[in-house]
Amino acid sequence: MGLLHADRLFPIEEGARALARALHGSVKDLPIVSPHGHTDPRWFAENEAFPDPARLFVTPDHYVFRMLHSQGIPLEAMGVPRADGGPTETDGRTIWRLFAANYHLFRGTPSRLWLDHAFSEVFGLERRLSAGTADASYDHIADCLSRPEFRPRALFERFGIEVIATTESARDDLRWHRMIRESGWQGRVITAYRPDAVVDPEFAGFADNVAALGELTGEDTATWQGYLAAHRKRRAYFKEFGATSTDHGHATARTEDLPQAEAAALLAKALKGTCTPDEADAFRGHMLTEMARMSLDDGLVLQIHPGSFRNHSQPVMDRFGRDKGFDIPTRTDYVRALRPLLSAVGGDPRLTVIVFTLDETAYARELAPLAGVYPALKLGPAWWFHDSPEGMRRFREMTTETAGFMNTVGFNDDTRAFCSIPARHDVARRVDSAFLATLVATGRLDEDEAFEVAQDLAYRLAKQAYRL
Amino acid sequence: MGLLHADRLFPIEEGARALARALHGSVKDLPIVSPHGHTDPRWFAENEAFPDPARLFVTPDHYVFRMLHSQGIPLEAMGVPRADGGPTETDGRTIWRLFAANYHLFRGTPSRLWLDHAFSEVFGLERRLSAGTADASYDHIADCLSRPEFRPRALFERFGIEVIATTESARDDLRWHRMIRESGWQGRVITAYRPDAVVDPEFAGFADNVAALGELTGEDTATWQGYLAAHRKRRAYFKEFGATSTDHGHATARTEDLPQAEAAALLAKALKGTCTPDEADAFRGHMLTEMARMSLDDGLVLQIHPGSFRNHSQPVMDRFGRDKGFDIPTRTDYVRALRPLLSAVGGDPRLTVIVFTLDETAYARELAPLAGVYPALKLGPAWWFHDSPEGMRRFREMTTETAGFMNTVGFNDDTRAFCSIPARHDVARRVDSAFLATLVATGRLDEDEAFEVAQDLAYRLAKQAYRL
Amino acid sequence: MGLLHADRLFPIEEGARALARALHGSVKDLPIVSPHGHTDPRWFAENEAFPDPARLFVTPDHYVFRMLHSQGIPLEAMGVPRADGGPTETDGRTIWRLFAANYHLFRGTPSRLWLDHAFSEVFGLERRLSAGTADASYDHIADCLSRPEFRPRALFERFGIEVIATTESARDDLRWHRMIRESGWQGRVITAYRPDAVVDPEFAGFADNVAALGELTGEDTATWQGYLAAHRKRRAYFKEFGATSTDHGHATARTEDLPQAEAAALLAKALKGTCTPDEADAFRGHMLTEMARMSLDDGLVLQIHPGSFRNHSQPVMDRFGRDKGFDIPTRTDYVRALRPLLSAVGGDPRLTVIVFTLDETAYARELAPLAGVYPALKLGPAWWFHDSPEGMRRFREMTTETAGFMNTVGFNDDTRAFCSIPARHDVARRVDSAFLATLVATGRLDEDEAFEVAQDLAYRLAKQAYRL
Repeated sequence: MGLLHADRLFPIEEGARALARALHGSVKDLPIVSPHGHTDPRWFAENEAFPDPARLFVTPDHYVFRMLHSQGIPLEAMGVPRADGGPTETDGRTIWRLFAANYHLFRGTPSRLWLDHAFSEVFGLERRLSAGTADASYDHIADCLSRPEFRPRALFERFGIEVIATTESARDDLRWHRMIRESGWQGRVITAYRPDAVVDPEFAGFADNVAALGELTGEDTATWQGYLAAHRKRRAYFKEFGATSTDHGHATARTEDLPQAEAAALLAKALKGTCTPDEADAFRGHMLTEMARMSLDDGLVLQIHPGSFRNHSQPVMDRFGRDKGFDIPTRTDYVRALRPLLSAVGGDPRLTVIVFTLDETAYARELAPLAGVYPALKLGPAWWFHDSPEGMRRFREMTTETAGFMNTVGFNDDTRAFCSIPARHDVARRVDSAFLATLVATGRLDEDEAFEVAQDLAYRLAKQAYRL
Repeated sequence: MGLLHADRLFPIEEGARALARALHGSVKDLPIVSPHGHTDPRWFAENEAFPDPARLFVTPDHYVFRMLHSQGIPLEAMGVPRADGGPTETDGRTIWRLFAANYHLFRGTPSRLWLDHAFSEVFGLERRLSAGTADASYDHIADCLSRPEFRPRALFERFGIEVIATTESARDDLRWHRMIRESGWQGRVITAYRPDAVVDPEFAGFADNVAALGELTGEDTATWQGYLAAHRKRRAYFKEFGATSTDHGHATARTEDLPQAEAAALLAKALKGTCTPDEADAFRGHMLTEMARMSLDDGLVLQIHPGSFRNHSQPVMDRFGRDKGFDIPTRTDYVRALRPLLSAVGGDPRLTVIVFTLDETAYARELAPLAGVYPALKLGPAWWFHDSPEGMRRFREMTTETAGFMNTVGFNDDTRAFCSIPARHDVARRVDSAFLATLVATGRLDEDEAFEVAQDLAYRLAKQAYRL
Repeated sequence: MGLLHADRLFPIEEGARALARALHGSVKDLPIVSPHGHTDPRWFAENEAFPDPARLFVTPDHYVFRMLHSQGIPLEAMGVPRADGGPTETDGRTIWRLFAANYHLFRGTPSRLWLDHAFSEVFGLERRLSAGTADASYDHIADCLSRPEFRPRALFERFGIEVIATTESARDDLRWHRMIRESGWQGRVITAYRPDAVVDPEFAGFADNVAALGELTGEDTATWQGYLAAHRKRRAYFKEFGATSTDHGHATARTEDLPQAEAAALLAKALKGTCTPDEADAFRGHMLTEMARMSLDDGLVLQIHPGSFRNHSQPVMDRFGRDKGFDIPTRTDYVRALRPLLSAVGGDPRLTVIVFTLDETAYARELAPLAGVYPALKLGPAWWFHDSPEGMRRFREMTTETAGFMNTVGFNDDTRAFCSIPARHDVARRVDSAFLATLVATGRLDEDEAFEVAQDLAYRLAKQAYRL
C-alpha cells in the first residue's frame, strides 16, 4: 500500500470521512501559497543540486536531529557543524544509516508524516525507512538528486508553489533575490523583513548592527529619527524584492507605545549598551508599535512570533551555536502585552497584525477573543511544535468559536526543509478538511459552506492576509 | 431541511448518536431554569413589543457586533450608541442588511447556532441568512414582533421558563421586579445581588456609591459595621424579590480573610480614595469572605466570576463606553486566591460558593480538585466565550473525572439576548447528552445512570445549587 | 452483563475499536511493572489479612473520601483518623453503607472504573454498588478477606506483579523490606529513596532530621561534605533493597547548580533555621542537581514530582493532619526551572531524569520539547488527578508529536490502594491501545508498529527507564 494512507488524518467514521475526502479533493491541487518560511533563496538563485540525502533530510532539520539526540546520539554523529569547526561526521551514508536505524523514534510525530510524504511523493520510495532499507533508499534519493528534475527550481514548479516568502535580516543585501529576478526565471520567491538584529538591544552586536544599518541607508542611526528613517528605507528596499511582510521574533509579546522622547532615550542607552533587561524589553516592544505605524504607510503586514526561550542548553550553545533544536516554548501573555500596540493602531482596518503563539493556552483565552474584536489583528496558524495534526486540530477547536475562520490567515509552512513543503500543506489541508467535515456532521456548518471555507483555509486567506 | 440539523452536536458514530438522541429526548422538554443572566426585568414588567429585528439581534449582542467589528465594520454602523451621543446608524433595516451580508463570519461559532435556532424555532424562518434573504427575514421578524405572541411575557411562557434570574446592582430599586410582582403575572422573574459598585474601591464613584447605599438603608456606611449592616439590609431587600444569589465580577479570584480592624481601615482608605491598587484588591477579596459569612446567615448563594480584563481598547472605551465586546479573558489563579475564603468557610456544607472561570487551564488543574473536596465549593458551567459546544465539551472532559457531576451546578445562559435562551439551553443539553452517550459507549457509565445524570444536568442541579 | 464493559475506553467506531481490542489483547496479560507507588511494604512482610472492606476501600483512599467530603460528609464519618486522636467512625459496615449510598458521586470518575474493576475482578461482585447492595457486598468482601488467597502476597501473585517499588523516607530502616527478603518469598518488592525530609529546609524538623541522618550514617551532616556523603551512603543502603530510583516532591520544579561554597552556606543557614523562603527553595533546587550527580555515579533514576500545593485547608490540616485529599495542583514552569540541572547534566545519556507534572499546560509547551531534545530527560506518565482516561489521552495527544513514545517511561500506578493496581494498569493499557488504534486508523502509524509500541508502553519502557 505504499507509505501513505489515502485517508490519513480524516475522521474515522465513514460518513464524515467521505465528506472530508471530498473537501480535501476540492483543495488538494490548489497552488501552494507559502507566505512565511525559511527556505534559502540561494537554492533558487543558483539552482544547484542538493548535495546528498543526509544533507537534505537530516543535518539541516532540527526536528530530526533533536529527536535522535534526545535518545543519546551526539549531534556530531548527524553532521551538525560545531561552532569551533571541530570534526563531525561528514559521510552522508553513515549519517543516513544512523537516521534509518532510528526511524522508529518518529512514530506518532509529524516529522514521520512529512518524511514519508517526501520519500513517497517526491522520490517515489515505497518501503518504510529502517536499517534494512537504509542503503537502498540512500542510493535511490542520491540518484534522483543528481538529475535536473530534482533541482530547486524544478521542484518548486513540481510542488505547485505559486509564491514563497523567505526571511532575511534587515541588513541582508538580498543578492540571491536579485539574482533570481535577473535570471528571468518566473518562480515567485519574495523576501520578508526581519529586523531582530537591529531592534533588539540584547542581540549580539546590536550597536554595530545599527551603525551598519546607518551606513547601508545613509541615515544617522545614532539618532532616533535617523534610526526610524533607516528602517523605512530598508522596508522600501525589501518591498522592491517582493516583501509584503515584516517578522518579529521576540522572547515575549510585549508591546509599548512610548512617548517619542522616551523611545529616543532608550535607543541612545541601547546603543551605549546600558539598557537594563526591562528597558531592552520595552524598546523591543515599542519598536513593534513603530513598525505597525510604518505598516500603515507602506502596507507591509506585521508578524509577531513571540515566546521561544532560545538556546536553552548552555553546553550545546557553546559547542554548536544557535538553532540546534534547543529553543523551548514558554508561557506567553497577550492581553496586557499587546494592549499598547492595539490601543494605538489595532482599530485601523488598513493594518494587518498577525500574531502567532507557542503557548496554546492563549488560543481560546486570549488570542481568539482579541482577534475576534480588533480589526487589525489576525491569528497566525498553529506554529512550530504545534504545526502538527493534533496541534492544528487544537488550534481550530480553540479559536474558531470565538474568532471564526476569517480572522485566521491560512497556513504557514515556516520551514527550511524544502521537500517537506508539499507534505506540510497537505497535512494542513487534511486537518482542516477533517475539522470542517466534523462541523458539518454535527450540524454546525452547512455542506456548501464547508467547501467555501476549505478554499479559504487552503488558499484564499493566505493570499488576502499577506496581500499576495 | 431547514436551518437546524436534527442531530446537531451529537456524536458522529451512529450507536452513540442514537443514545445521545434518546438522552436529549428525555430532557429537551424540561422547563428552563435560568439561575444567572442579564435579561432586562423591564421587558417582563412593561411587556412592550421588541423594537425591530436589528435592535433585537444585532445592536445589543456583543458576540454579534464584535465579530463584525473584527472585520473592520465600525461599531456605529451597527447602531452601537456612542458615549458622546454622536450619530450612529438608526435604520434597523440598514443594520440588518449589513449583518446579513456578513453572516458567513459566524461560521463555526456558537452565535450561528443560537441565531439559527431563534430564527427557526422562534420566528419560523427556513432559509439561511444572507444578503439575498436579508429583506425577507427582516420583514418577517418585524411582522412577528408586532404581534402579541412575540411580546416578552408570551415568549417567556412559550420558552418554558420556570424561573429566570436577572442581575441588579446593589443600589437598584428593583422597580421592575416590583411591577412584575404587582402585575399579577405568574412568570417567575427574580433578581440577584451584584454589589461591585459598592465593594470595589476602584469602581467609578465608589465613595458616592457607598454613601448612597447608606442613605438607602439608613446605615452609616462610613463605618465598617454600618457598611456591613447596609449590605445585610440590601441582601434582605433583594431576597424579597426572589433573590437566591449574589454575584461578584472581580478582575482576579483573590479572596482575603482579614482581621476586622484591618478591613475597617481599608474601607476608610477606600472611601478617601487613597487605597493602593493592592489594597483595593485586598478589600474586594476580603468582601467576598464577608459576603460568604452573610450567606451563612441568609442562605444566598455566592457566585464568583473572575478573570476578565474589561474595556481593553482605550479608544473604544473613550468613544463607546463599557461592555462593547472588548472584555478579554486573562490567566487566573485559584489555588492561592481562594484559600483565605475556603479556609474560613469552605468546609461548611450549609454554604454554596459557585466559581466560574475564563481560564480553562484551571478546570482540571485547580478548580475540579478544589470543588472535588471542599463542601461549600461548586463549579459554575463553561462561561462566556467558553459557553459553546467545544467549550462545554472541554468543561466536562476536564472537570468530571475529579469533581464528578454533583459538584457542578447545571447550566447558566448568562445572556441578555432573550431569544437565544432556548437555543443556549438546547446546546447545553445536547452537548451534555453527547458527553454522557460517549461515557456509556466507552463503558464509563451505565445507560440507566446516564438518563439520571441528564436530568441532573438539564434541570435538577441548577434548582438545587441555586436553591430555586 | 456485570460491572465491566468489555470494550471500555476503546474508540467508538467499530474498525478502530476492533484494532484497539486486538492491541489490548496483545498486552493485557503482560506482567505488571510498577516502578513508582505507595503500597505499604509491611503488607508483604507480614502478609496479614486486610481488616475489612471499608478499611480496604474507603478510609485509606483519598480519591474516595475527598469526593464524599465534597458533598458535605464529615471525614470522621469515613473513619479518617483525627490528629488529636478524637473519635471517628470505627464500624466498617457503617462506613461502607455511607460509601455505597453515595456511590453515584463517582459517576464519570476514574475511581469508579478502579473500584468496579476491583469489585468485579478481585472479588467477583456482579451488581453495582448502591444502598441496596451495600450489605451483601460488604459481607462478600469481608468473607473473601478472611481467606488466604486474599492475603497480600497471594494477591500480589494473582495480579501478576513482576516488580513493585514502594517509597521510603531517607531515614527509614527498611525493616519491612528486610523482612520480605529474609522471608524467602520470591515477590520482588523494592524501595525508592525519598529524601524530602532531609533536603527541604522547610520540612518539619529539618535540622533534627539531618542530624539523625548523620547518626544513621556516621557522617557529620553539619558539614556540606558530610551531608553529601550521608546521602550517598543512604542511597547505597536503599540500593541494597532493590532501589533503582530516587523521588523528589517539591512545590516547584526549580533546580539550581550553585557553586559548592554557596550550597554549603545555604545548608548551614538551613540547619540554623534562618533560610528565607527563597533560599530554602534554592537549596531544594540545588539538591536536585546534586542528586543527579550522585545518580551519574550510582545509577539511580531521578524522579521529579513538582507542583502540588499541599494541605490547602488549614482547618482540615489542624484537625486531621497531612494527606487528607487537600493537595491541589498548581501552575508549574519547567523551562527556566529545569535549566540549571539540564545545563549541568542533561546532556549525559547515562543519566535518567523523569519529570512529572500536575500542570497539563506544560505537556506540549514545555515538557515534550524538553524531553524531545535532552538525552537525560524523560516524561513520567499522566500523574495523580490526571491519571484517568481523559488525562491519559491528553498526555498522549499533547506529548507524542514532539517527544515521541521513546522519551516516555510507561505507566506508574502511584497508588497505595493495592486492589486498584490491576485496574489502573488495565486503564492505562486500554487508553494507550485506543490511542494507537486511532493513529493507525488515521494513517499516522502502521499496524505492525502499533503492536510494537503497545508492548513498549505496557511493559518495556517502564523496565528500561527504571532499570528494572
